[in-house]
Amino acid sequence: MTFPAILLSEVGPRDGLQSVKATMPTADKLRWIDALHAAGVREIEVASFVPAHLLPQMADAAEVVRHARTLPGLTVMALVPNRRGAEAALAAGVHKLTMPVSASAAHSLANVRKTREQMVEEVRAIAALRREIAPQVRLEAGISTAFGCTLQGEVPEDEVIRLAAQCVAAGADESGLSDTVGYANPAQVRRLFRRLLAELGDKAGAAHMHNTRGLGLANCLAAYEEGVRTFDASLGGLGGCPYAPGASGNVVTEDLVFMFEAMGVRTGIDLQRLIAARAPLRAGLPGEPVYGMTPEAGLPRNFVQGGIANV
Amino acid sequence: MTFPAILLSEVGPRDGLQSVKATMPTADKLRWIDALHAAGVREIEVASFVPAHLLPQMADAAEVVRHARTLPGLTVMALVPNRRGAEAALAAGVHKLTMPVSASAAHSLANVRKTREQMVEEVRAIAALRREIAPQVRLEAGISTAFGCTLQGEVPEDEVIRLAAQCVAAGADESGLSDTVGYANPAQVRRLFRRLLAELGDKAGAAHMHNTRGLGLANCLAAYEEGVRTFDASLGGLGGCPYAPGASGNVVTEDLVFMFEAMGVRTGIDLQRLIAARAPLRAGLPGEPVYGMTPEAGLPRNFVQGGIANV
Repeated sequence: MTFPAILLSEVGPRDGLQSVKATMPTADKLRWIDALHAAGVREIEVASFVPAHLLPQMADAAEVVRHARTLPGLTVMALVPNRRGAEAALAAGVHKLTMPVSASAAHSLANVRKTREQMVEEVRAIAALRREIAPQVRLEAGISTAFGCTLQGEVPEDEVIRLAAQCVAAGADESGLSDTVGYANPAQVRRLFRRLLAELGDKAGAAHMHNTRGLGLANCLAAYEEGVRTFDASLGGLGGCPYAPGASGNVVTEDLVFMFEAMGVRTGIDLQRLIAARAPLRAGLPGEPVYGMTPEAGLPRNFVQGGIANV
Repeated sequence: MTFPAILLSEVGPRDGLQSVKATMPTADKLRWIDALHAAGVREIEVASFVPAHLLPQMADAAEVVRHARTLPGLTVMALVPNRRGAEAALAAGVHKLTMPVSASAAHSLANVRKTREQMVEEVRAIAALRREIAPQVRLEAGISTAFGCTLQGEVPEDEVIRLAAQCVAAGADESGLSDTVGYANPAQVRRLFRRLLAELGDKAGAAHMHNTRGLGLANCLAAYEEGVRTFDASLGGLGGCPYAPGASGNVVTEDLVFMFEAMGVRTGIDLQRLIAARAPLRAGLPGEPVYGMTPEAGLPRNFVQGGIANV
């Protein structure tokens, strides 16, 4: 039995770092990104292009992008909330832009001070800009609070799917779903990704799950079994969303990679080197808690990557 | 869409308490068991009938069983490693016996100082004893290290299934599979439980998963989707196996119940009351770490039990 491979999209340098109070020095960021790349990570969201007075942790975004571009085979992603951010990210040379578009009306206003409809127009403007000055760059719209919202509670599934389709119609190359606040459960993940894949086909994007209530890996498993092949995760579980109360807890990259590799799903990532990439993270953020069960427990005896484990 | 309900089998008072150094006072054990029952838990492994010099934490096993029997609707289980333990458990009035039978030859010797073949004979002896003096009592054989072993590494799947079948042939009413050391992955869980269900039908028993590497809930999800309907878990994630190095980390009852209830799978358990049952656990084991993401994060806004959540 063989399983299709997945792409692990590491979001720690953006999602993780923008969620902690401390600012990681640029040199440490670069060492951390180098270590992730050395472990085999081939897509990294390295920065967010937002005004430095809002997120001083991201003031060196352009420098980080320029360095990351030197790493062979790496897709360098950046988050951009608006056209101004996209201009800066494209000038720095990113390979892929990701825009957060919230399915929750309340969260959209809290996070980017725009309505959902205004965000779809922002996607359209950025898609046009990209076509004009950097047509090779990919554009992703990540539908945040797709599984519920701490501010408004339920988020209707029809609205989530419609918003994703609107973003693709406005020019995004793909649209994924984010459990920004850790409300998702596996049954809901199956339903929503099944609908997303039916609606968007190969323009259905990544699963971005949180582990806030411990269901992160179970939700990733459900998404994988529905056909999702790109998974966001954060080394050491760093990060969450600064504008959604109680939203801590990205899925831990180390545990997610262990789950897939143990199943025989190739990630292209070497687990020992991935665990070693925690050292530059810790060095750059002294005192910040770093999570992960697999690094604590160690790999199973006789564990072999890339095969069916423990059989 | 509706999903079949599950039975949560709480193992904390046995598996949890025998894994910590401190001994919980009997009065605290009874308060904890009462609180679990008040939350809706309907099967509890309340004690282990082993010599008190080996596990002083279980010296009050008979007293705990006698109290638990007064709780309406509760199935009172106890672990028994041998015939002498079974005699004591039956004398105390348990409703169900569970015997640990290790699929790993190395773990079997380390845990009970018997070979696997000797343990099957022990099952046969206990089944005969039960038929003779307490035919209404159920007998379960739990196949431990079914997914791998820290001592010997791989455990061949054929041996696991054969051992489970031998236990049922020897008189056990059911045989479940335990990931004693936290090596299991969802693909392996699917394969093994599919084979177990094909081999044993309605005599296929519980999934006992650990969260050692963070995969506990994903493995339970996989087992549920293969048809497993009874799940072992431990409040606060207390416990593991004292004779398997690095085997810490039972699946956290609170997170498992949250996952199932959020999916719309009935557990019969009230999550708020379940979280309240952590208070007597903490009171009886001061200073002992208590795990669980859902109790820390709280329930989602507008969360409704027993329905499809967040939709």
